[in-house]
Amino acid sequence: MGKEDFVKEITNIEDDIAQWYTDIVIKAELADYTDTKGCIAIRPYGYAIWENIQKYTDAKFKEIGVENAYFPVLIPENLLQKEKDHVEGFAPEVAWVTEAGGKKLEERYCIRPTSETIISTMYSKWLTSWRDLPMVYNQWCNVMRWEKETRPFLRSREFLWQEGHTIHETAEEAEEMTLKIFDIYNEVAEDLLAIPTVRGLKTESEKFAGADKTYTIETMMYDGKALQSGTSHYFGQNFTKPFEIKFQNRDGKEEYAYQTSWGISTRLIGAIIMAHGDNRGLKMPPKVAPIQVVIVPVAQHKEGVLEKANELFVNLKKNYRVKLDDRDNVSNGYKFNDWEMRGVPIRLEIGPRDIENGVCVLCRRDTAEKVTIELDKIDEAIEKMLEDIHNNMYKICKERLKDRTTSVTTLDEFIEQIDKKQGFIKGMFCGDPACEEKLKDLTAAKSRCIPKEQENLSDKCFICGRPAKQMVIWGRQY
Amino acid sequence: MGKEDFVKEITNIEDDIAQWYTDIVIKAELADYTDTKGCIAIRPYGYAIWENIQKYTDAKFKEIGVENAYFPVLIPENLLQKEKDHVEGFAPEVAWVTEAGGKKLEERYCIRPTSETIISTMYSKWLTSWRDLPMVYNQWCNVMRWEKETRPFLRSREFLWQEGHTIHETAEEAEEMTLKIFDIYNEVAEDLLAIPTVRGLKTESEKFAGADKTYTIETMMYDGKALQSGTSHYFGQNFTKPFEIKFQNRDGKEEYAYQTSWGISTRLIGAIIMAHGDNRGLKMPPKVAPIQVVIVPVAQHKEGVLEKANELFVNLKKNYRVKLDDRDNVSNGYKFNDWEMRGVPIRLEIGPRDIENGVCVLCRRDTAEKVTIELDKIDEAIEKMLEDIHNNMYKICKERLKDRTTSVTTLDEFIEQIDKKQGFIKGMFCGDPACEEKLKDLTAAKSRCIPKEQENLSDKCFICGRPAKQMVIWGRQY
Repeated sequence: MGKEDFVKEITNIEDDIAQWYTDIVIKAELADYTDTKGCIAIRPYGYAIWENIQKYTDAKFKEIGVENAYFPVLIPENLLQKEKDHVEGFAPEVAWVTEAGGKKLEERYCIRPTSETIISTMYSKWLTSWRDLPMVYNQWCNVMRWEKETRPFLRSREFLWQEGHTIHETAEEAEEMTLKIFDIYNEVAEDLLAIPTVRGLKTESEKFAGADKTYTIETMMYDGKALQSGTSHYFGQNFTKPFEIKFQNRDGKEEYAYQTSWGISTRLIGAIIMAHGDNRGLKMPPKVAPIQVVIVPVAQHKEGVLEKANELFVNLKKNYRVKLDDRDNVSNGYKFNDWEMRGVPIRLEIGPRDIENGVCVLCRRDTAEKVTIELDKIDEAIEKMLEDIHNNMYKICKERLKDRTTSVTTLDEFIEQIDKKQGFIKGMFCGDPACEEKLKDLTAAKSRCIPKEQENLSDKCFICGRPAKQMVIWGRQY
Repeated sequence: MGKEDFVKEITNIEDDIAQWYTDIVIKAELADYTDTKGCIAIRPYGYAIWENIQKYTDAKFKEIGVENAYFPVLIPENLLQKEKDHVEGFAPEVAWVTEAGGKKLEERYCIRPTSETIISTMYSKWLTSWRDLPMVYNQWCNVMRWEKETRPFLRSREFLWQEGHTIHETAEEAEEMTLKIFDIYNEVAEDLLAIPTVRGLKTESEKFAGADKTYTIETMMYDGKALQSGTSHYFGQNFTKPFEIKFQNRDGKEEYAYQTSWGISTRLIGAIIMAHGDNRGLKMPPKVAPIQVVIVPVAQHKEGVLEKANELFVNLKKNYRVKLDDRDNVSNGYKFNDWEMRGVPIRLEIGPRDIENGVCVLCRRDTAEKVTIELDKIDEAIEKMLEDIHNNMYKICKERLKDRTTSVTTLDEFIEQIDKKQGFIKGMFCGDPACEEKLKDLTAAKSRCIPKEQENLSDKCFICGRPAKQMVIWGRQY
């Protein structure tokens, strides 16, 4: 199979990015559809990305004192009902267990869509004194939300995530926690996945069901659409009151604790695909790439080639995630295309002539640039190249974000901009959810966030013309 | 609170081991009961043990080429039905999702009790040629079995585990896989958890629903009862035929693959409690102990004590899991009891006089032995002591296993032995499931395994007197 045939199997990204996305997910063996509607099987190449995200994030969490725990996947219906906004937000999209062990159950259980309610019940049992605070627990687990429209990783009925739930002595301490996590999420996106972020508070309509404040990390995909990539919520006492999470404070008085929750999920794998991919397939951010370097021996049937390739493999494996592709039933061209499609950051080619000259060839996935490197300098060359690739991938996304962020002062302008140059649009907002609803009906765009760094584009809400409260970033989303 | 009061809160292990077990689980904050009946919340001190087990086991898996993946938690009813023995074994104890997203579902989904069926469906989709084999996938996840009687960790409706599922080109290769994992599980029990094992094949009645062979690791608890602690199954083509997991073999002919599956679970946390615990509480095996060394400063209000304790903490943290207990609202006696109850292997005491003399005191949880150590030799002393504790804990269990293993040649002898000296009993077996059923009805004991190292105790089955096929180890179980 030649280069042309190979690439033909993947839909052109400019023609139909949705189909391109599905093609990549399946062809690169990241995931596959299953007999369980709306749920995917995450294959090893996709799961390894998640493991790398977990490893990085979990270490950051532990540095700031987060402890892992595990709570039941099933939540009794009465618990879900306890916080009014929360149940309104989640009840319509839960899955219910009604029979078990051969019997109809007296009370239904839902599969957790998120675990505020069950964890709050436990906190109320465990908390007595201010000395017990803070409790800073996290769980890595599966959750389920019965969405109508699904898409692998981006919106799957079941997904994997981490959900942190914390309780604190004071509102200040809880808010500080929310912000610490917000910073970690930003590092995950930018430093680990090479995806620049836009960040800030969610508007009233878009914040988490039951939260006082939701901080969000928003990223821009290849086509200018937004992806909500991580959220950190401050609850105040919204859950601690109905769930009676009380403690004796330093003055000996009873007080309700202050609470947070926060999560990132396997949706980030979707972000990697959609933010970095191109017509040749995936581009894996080097720091989470399951394979950082693939070694392709050239003329591998010739004496000494496979031996040398294997020697390189064994050496490089000490510092990098490496794969040796010694398949004898496909051509080099096929291998090159295959690994490009899977987004491996560096391809290392080595053939008989290279061996003679004590060199090998490194080829970058992001730029297709090839360089010849002396074998005794290979380790440093790869380290440097992986760093360059990370930086270049970040830069490309950053430029797109800049190019595709505009600002408007009227609704007409907005409608024109969002169709002409799909992307992020800055516009002043009065804060009324009705305006946001109207915009969504007209354009399918929603608020992304209220950024901390405000600009004053006008005194008036661009939707209704009434006095504006703040500048908001808007966009269509996945 | 004095020593006496503290210990009184835990039921005496000789009086009521079941209540002792529950007391320990709750008091040591390993887990707690929840509003979801039969399901527990695993608290950080319990979950950290599981993380340590995961880390060790996952690394061993990866060394032999296991790849992690993730499959849906919900299994459509029709898939569960495909393998006859499997559905008979599991259908009675599953939980069913019948409503989701506000609607009654056309087909029920069960929450996975185990994932052979859903994974087999995917394997049949992914497998084409012998070149695709083996596929050696594992998932770390939650599963649910709606047991009537539950007990934290040992028999919880929801539990966490890893389930490996592999397909191979030949029966030999699949069997070899089953045995490789069997070896790893044995290492987990013996080398990591300091629990000696008895191992072998399960009998016909006790093997996994759908398996040709089940290899099992059996461990003995404090009271002589058995705990099945890890199983590795060889399926032959039992699932690959109904699920049509076919490939083109090296001769170009279509063939069904050979399959295995294997798992260990959070039940191992129960094994740690029950195998090692005593009347002072938990005894944590050093290699998985969430806290290996607890530093208790003596006379911590005196100048320099907390500083020195903290200096030690910072240094030891580099190599060990250490906790500094600087609480100022409880006595030293309370702290000593508290950490003993939580099973921390080593307590390090340091007070003003020790600091003057450049020493500290190490106290072993397993023997209560105290030694004074020079501060500049502390690292080596701890390393050596943790190793000694591991070995001693293993030895204690090994002696119990030896003491409490007897053999019989008649049913009367068995009945007498099982009540007099609850433990493992060797006895010859004809292989008829009816005999096993009879024994279970009479004594509540079941076969544990058919050990590889056979002994010939008699020619006759001790239950029915007919010709014996093999020597089997029997016992009551958790």
